[in-house]
Amino acid sequence: MTDLPISPEFVTDQNKAEDAALANDYSSLGEQLDRRGIDIDAITKKVAAFAVAVPSWGVGTGGTRFARFAGPGEPRGIFEKLDDCGVINQLTRATPNVSLHIPWDKADPKELKAKADQLGLGFDAMNSNTFADAKDSPLSYKFGSLSHTDPAVRQQAIAHNIECIEIGKTIGSKALTIWTGEGTNFPGQGNFTRAFERYLDSSKAVYAALPDDWRLFTEHKMYEPAFYSTIIQDWGSSYLVSKELGPKAFSLVDLGHHAPNTNIEMIVARLIQFEKLAGFHFNDSKYGDDDLDAGSINPFQLFLVFNELIDAEARKAKNFDPAYMIDQSHNVTDPIESLMSSAIEILRAYAQALLVDRKALEGYQDGNDVMMANQTLKRAFTTDVGPILAKARLAKGGAIDPLAVYRASGYRAKVAAARPSTGGSSSGIV
Amino acid sequence: MTDLPISPEFVTDQNKAEDAALANDYSSLGEQLDRRGIDIDAITKKVAAFAVAVPSWGVGTGGTRFARFAGPGEPRGIFEKLDDCGVINQLTRATPNVSLHIPWDKADPKELKAKADQLGLGFDAMNSNTFADAKDSPLSYKFGSLSHTDPAVRQQAIAHNIECIEIGKTIGSKALTIWTGEGTNFPGQGNFTRAFERYLDSSKAVYAALPDDWRLFTEHKMYEPAFYSTIIQDWGSSYLVSKELGPKAFSLVDLGHHAPNTNIEMIVARLIQFEKLAGFHFNDSKYGDDDLDAGSINPFQLFLVFNELIDAEARKAKNFDPAYMIDQSHNVTDPIESLMSSAIEILRAYAQALLVDRKALEGYQDGNDVMMANQTLKRAFTTDVGPILAKARLAKGGAIDPLAVYRASGYRAKVAAARPSTGGSSSGIV
Amino acid sequence: MTDLPISPEFVTDQNKAEDAALANDYSSLGEQLDRRGIDIDAITKKVAAFAVAVPSWGVGTGGTRFARFAGPGEPRGIFEKLDDCGVINQLTRATPNVSLHIPWDKADPKELKAKADQLGLGFDAMNSNTFADAKDSPLSYKFGSLSHTDPAVRQQAIAHNIECIEIGKTIGSKALTIWTGEGTNFPGQGNFTRAFERYLDSSKAVYAALPDDWRLFTEHKMYEPAFYSTIIQDWGSSYLVSKELGPKAFSLVDLGHHAPNTNIEMIVARLIQFEKLAGFHFNDSKYGDDDLDAGSINPFQLFLVFNELIDAEARKAKNFDPAYMIDQSHNVTDPIESLMSSAIEILRAYAQALLVDRKALEGYQDGNDVMMANQTLKRAFTTDVGPILAKARLAKGGAIDPLAVYRASGYRAKVAAARPSTGGSSSGIV
Amino acid sequence: MTDLPISPEFVTDQNKAEDAALANDYSSLGEQLDRRGIDIDAITKKVAAFAVAVPSWGVGTGGTRFARFAGPGEPRGIFEKLDDCGVINQLTRATPNVSLHIPWDKADPKELKAKADQLGLGFDAMNSNTFADAKDSPLSYKFGSLSHTDPAVRQQAIAHNIECIEIGKTIGSKALTIWTGEGTNFPGQGNFTRAFERYLDSSKAVYAALPDDWRLFTEHKMYEPAFYSTIIQDWGSSYLVSKELGPKAFSLVDLGHHAPNTNIEMIVARLIQFEKLAGFHFNDSKYGDDDLDAGSINPFQLFLVFNELIDAEARKAKNFDPAYMIDQSHNVTDPIESLMSSAIEILRAYAQALLVDRKALEGYQDGNDVMMANQTLKRAFTTDVGPILAKARLAKGGAIDPLAVYRASGYRAKVAAARPSTGGSSSGIV
Repeated sequence: MTDLPISPEFVTDQNKAEDAALANDYSSLGEQLDRRGIDIDAITKKVAAFAVAVPSWGVGTGGTRFARFAGPGEPRGIFEKLDDCGVINQLTRATPNVSLHIPWDKADPKELKAKADQLGLGFDAMNSNTFADAKDSPLSYKFGSLSHTDPAVRQQAIAHNIECIEIGKTIGSKALTIWTGEGTNFPGQGNFTRAFERYLDSSKAVYAALPDDWRLFTEHKMYEPAFYSTIIQDWGSSYLVSKELGPKAFSLVDLGHHAPNTNIEMIVARLIQFEKLAGFHFNDSKYGDDDLDAGSINPFQLFLVFNELIDAEARKAKNFDPAYMIDQSHNVTDPIESLMSSAIEILRAYAQALLVDRKALEGYQDGNDVMMANQTLKRAFTTDVGPILAKARLAKGGAIDPLAVYRASGYRAKVAAARPSTGGSSSGIV
Repeated sequence: MTDLPISPEFVTDQNKAEDAALANDYSSLGEQLDRRGIDIDAITKKVAAFAVAVPSWGVGTGGTRFARFAGPGEPRGIFEKLDDCGVINQLTRATPNVSLHIPWDKADPKELKAKADQLGLGFDAMNSNTFADAKDSPLSYKFGSLSHTDPAVRQQAIAHNIECIEIGKTIGSKALTIWTGEGTNFPGQGNFTRAFERYLDSSKAVYAALPDDWRLFTEHKMYEPAFYSTIIQDWGSSYLVSKELGPKAFSLVDLGHHAPNTNIEMIVARLIQFEKLAGFHFNDSKYGDDDLDAGSINPFQLFLVFNELIDAEARKAKNFDPAYMIDQSHNVTDPIESLMSSAIEILRAYAQALLVDRKALEGYQDGNDVMMANQTLKRAFTTDVGPILAKARLAKGGAIDPLAVYRASGYRAKVAAARPSTGGSSSGIV
Repeated sequence: MTDLPISPEFVTDQNKAEDAALANDYSSLGEQLDRRGIDIDAITKKVAAFAVAVPSWGVGTGGTRFARFAGPGEPRGIFEKLDDCGVINQLTRATPNVSLHIPWDKADPKELKAKADQLGLGFDAMNSNTFADAKDSPLSYKFGSLSHTDPAVRQQAIAHNIECIEIGKTIGSKALTIWTGEGTNFPGQGNFTRAFERYLDSSKAVYAALPDDWRLFTEHKMYEPAFYSTIIQDWGSSYLVSKELGPKAFSLVDLGHHAPNTNIEMIVARLIQFEKLAGFHFNDSKYGDDDLDAGSINPFQLFLVFNELIDAEARKAKNFDPAYMIDQSHNVTDPIESLMSSAIEILRAYAQALLVDRKALEGYQDGNDVMMANQTLKRAFTTDVGPILAKARLAKGGAIDPLAVYRASGYRAKVAAARPSTGGSSSGIV
Repeated sequence: MTDLPISPEFVTDQNKAEDAALANDYSSLGEQLDRRGIDIDAITKKVAAFAVAVPSWGVGTGGTRFARFAGPGEPRGIFEKLDDCGVINQLTRATPNVSLHIPWDKADPKELKAKADQLGLGFDAMNSNTFADAKDSPLSYKFGSLSHTDPAVRQQAIAHNIECIEIGKTIGSKALTIWTGEGTNFPGQGNFTRAFERYLDSSKAVYAALPDDWRLFTEHKMYEPAFYSTIIQDWGSSYLVSKELGPKAFSLVDLGHHAPNTNIEMIVARLIQFEKLAGFHFNDSKYGDDDLDAGSINPFQLFLVFNELIDAEARKAKNFDPAYMIDQSHNVTDPIESLMSSAIEILRAYAQALLVDRKALEGYQDGNDVMMANQTLKRAFTTDVGPILAKARLAKGGAIDPLAVYRASGYRAKVAAARPSTGGSSSGIV
């Protein structure tokens, strides 16, 4: 029996005030879509079925190398983190799974499962950590982990990844995500080729430990924390890794991990075409790996990414089963609010992409009617799908206006009282 | 008496088929906006009053250094260009002014005026050209114009700009836009400081010839055609130019002329604050100065730019009177369609920015309620203002669906028959 | 019997004035290198054996979409272009091969061979052109060539590429380079996946016509002339193309075709490791595909690229046989001078990379001695290898100071008199 | 009486082994330069007179938001930091001044002065910190400091800056550097204009407290820690700040704080021309504010910056008195080694720039001889000035090979024994 952080009755009450307006807007939009040959309820149903995972570490306040400014009521461990994740899913009904990070979230698997069950949550991909040294770690990852020149360090990193798989098995996870960030800061520091050979060897050892029904996700990133070269610097290297590893290995796309100006939706299309798209780490960025809320900087790009996904689904692309996760750093907002807002923006892009008239689009493309092809996308994007999103939430017991209900619930104040402050701001690293 | 390129009756007829749906959508949106405390008719009125100029050169097919692929019915001179501009304004009712380029558009001023009057058009800023050599030009601009090391070349460039002012006076223009693109391709080629001194001196000579009621617009650009340094490389240098010249000089913002990742809306805010914003050259881009249709790549950025403009208007910023122009290169579309679509996207961003609840926004900003401040913008942006735009066009005699009416009118086929092809594609420069 | 454009006696005479100084500098450098355990003559020998091809189109003045400013004495056809290429090789002794572009350089193969023989030149890779419409072309490439939606256009492009192979066979070429630049300007214009499928299909048809001892080079480019998506946008897609095609297909790296901040030397390493590096199109850039002289903007990057090549050679990388070509646009310089200077800079980077103490470097890398690994590269780069380059030229009959000898020879004035001007500047495309 | 960290006799001994080779190389280079009309001793003298400050915080190991991996013997306070700075200056003789950061380096001024005197060091610009919360800080800088919406927070930030001035006065500093990093992470979070007004007001309050013989340095940065907008995002805004403040305010250039592809040397030229260049924070970067060792990624850019400085000096630019400081984050190297190597690279660029034949360059520029102008810079850059740098160090009592002598001295091992480890790696912020 689930025991949700906010009283369901309270949510229902709050929804009442918005009910009539939503019904109106939904009906008007339905009428408009009907004229465009679209059945609004079919769209709403698909939206209601869409889910995106949240990362356990996302409910804490993030920071930069300069400072971290803690917020009130920050969760002090994985169980409090799950509580916060429970709120997000309760109000948005879009984030039923949580992705754990080891060693940060290590705990008794039974207790984890019980807590998650109580909150109506499940577990998504496991995340290993060889980009920082654990407290009890005998060997340091300062100069790399899976690609380290010292075989003992590589072995330690391999063992840690296998441990993550083992933990994941006990809680029902079905995937391992490896992001290491390793690389070099200076020309000459490492040999690109030998380092990549070592990385592939180590990854193969992890892959060998993967259960049959699991997948392994590799993740590319252009830079940071390494500032001259990164072992998997782009999707080209990521593809080579998942290709070398085998059919259970796939390449993950984090929206903030690319070079300036990169056409990310095109990379998504290529990975789908070559049957290697693992899925996404959603966030948005203006400069680098800013880890801002999804859709907050370039919502049209998010839409174009989903446009590729719907297109792949429509043409029944092979080996296409993307895993969706939010991966953000919430430095100046309440993390619960940012994750709810981000989940909504992701659903918004999904709903908009569902509205694209694909048959017309294909015709315009084949006829090189550039203007009308472009207008076809634009028409879908400029449609205000807010009523669809709200209706889908409502239908599943969520909030019409998750942010407003969350604020009205007093949840943050309650946990702030229960969870002593971690103390102002830390001073940052440098 | 105006004599429009497409029969007004035809437009009215075409509108009839869309009338009922528009009325419905407008009414639903009005209801929704009313709940948000916004009077839809007040917004529509403002939208109807908004105008953006089109460039005479924009109605020809553009190209790249690799090739230009001509389209059917390309205008062969300024009078045919004005016809095409007439179509754009007739259907969108948003582009009543045309910006001329000298020497490309040189013609008898009386005939220009007469032709424009007939089409219901006026003239916007004059544009000089010292980035290419005119056929009869005694001295070359290969190594610069206003900043050239040879005073004779500078004098030729100054005289050309003054000639542009003279022509402009005869047709009712009130501004001169100077973009030269000059700079260097290699380190050492030029001395940054001495070149800028020469540029300022030349500009002052042009400025001295400016009538009292005219303005002079300078325009920065990061690169192209110069590939190592450009004389006005960014808004910082542009500001210094307009500051040095005097109160009639202002700095223009072309959306495609910035470094990757630049926060353009912030530059707009700074130029407004220091009373030097000239206005805009609208277009969109993904990589460099791509000159794509406005709002086609990053519509949210366009909205954020307009958000600054509405904000400036609201706080009665001093010396704030921006000039709006579209500046694009239409390589693969019918230029008339691209300009109509772009004008619509610009109005869309304007309308969305008008919907921002500025009082609430200011409150959230002052209280550092980051989430709600951001949501306030997002709410305005996700609103589908299409019905407002259509209603504003309709009210002024334009088309509910300009692209559809344009296509139905057969205008392109008609001019294609009347204007002999300029012959396939040219071979490009390199 | 070769008949060089500049009298060999003249070159010998000119060298005399520099002989003593060169001998001095070479001897001092030799002494210094000897202390570092390096045999200068061995380096000089390797440098003397290095060659980079020049493109026939590079000896004409380039331009931008805004303007092209012709220089004096521009070659009017392939035979005059070969003369200019002959000068470059005569003075630098580093550019014995010329890469032709079809249809621009179409001519009687026998005459081409004879002319080349006379100048001591050979032929490098053939280049096809489906990015612009040829004069007599029945179908247009406006919307693509190898990936066009119309099979007839694709067939025309395939046939053109096969024709290039046929011509190449008659003059001794052994490779075909395909760069098309095709793609889209607007979201929705094309379907990424279907376009890539068509591209692969067409490429396979060309590949099938490749003689056994030929190679096919594909070339990626981020953008331009397409401004939203390019069919082979990066090395990831380029790798997939060469992988799909087969063992004779390889991926070319043009230094100006990447996203901002890209670590190009790492891409080079990856392509070598996966046995797919075709070679290079050398140039330099600060912003986009600026096509500036090699080494003029970031000479250290050029060195780092060569560092990878020497490293690959040292570890006997499989299928490693890179083709070197310069690919630049000379807009403000004498193209002959730019190509000579570029060839020298490429040799400089090669010579510097040869000086790297690879054994020491490997030791530092294995021991994570970041500082000394970096210093090892830096020590090689800061060495002034000028005397080595001059000595290598001298040994092969070239000029100690190619630019000075070229200017002293009066070659440009001579051809300017013989080749009537193409007439000031063209007006640019837009 | 100075008491240096490493025995001067040891340094002298170490130098002996290199003396003969250096004399040889210096003499050969002198001969070569003499042929080019350059007096090597005059260059060496200028190099010996050049100084660049080191930041106190630079001798600790830096990190990223992901992790910090401590090194052995990290200084635990300002006095140990000064010891490390003493080593850097002792061996390079190029870094006689240290820049302090408050509150990190707060200590009894007399003790600071005494310690510095003992090490032969002085103090450079003071640095305030309002980008992180100090432990005892009553108000948080989470949402800004000098531009905060709350006047009490602004007042706290102003008071802190004035306190920095007060401390600086007691130790002989003559400048205050303000970098706050404040800005916003999301569109709408702040009002650009009102925030800048507040920033200017606060800065004016600090400026008012500046002694007559002090300067105030403002510093722009594109992003990080703020990820949507930064209060002084570029040199344009920085110029406006120093202009608004008055004649004692200047704009600092940090090489890593610009948009991708920015021509930084041009910005330097502009700030000099408009008499507002404060000086530099030296470092290098490939992606963002990577804070890598100066000259390690793009040494030619560093040379081009110095080329502007020498040019300004040559033409006696007004109000030109740049302050030089290194500002780096040493994540994977021994900070002492990185700072020594960086100081050497900065001197290398300075020495190379001194070799530019400015008279010839000016002639080529005036005659638009692009190739020879470019070659003139290139000739200076490719000269191996290593012997000049070593000779300058030697003449002042430093080491011919600072890195080798440092390693041979055993300094790091000694302090590692004396300074207990701060404990493996910290876990990073996120």
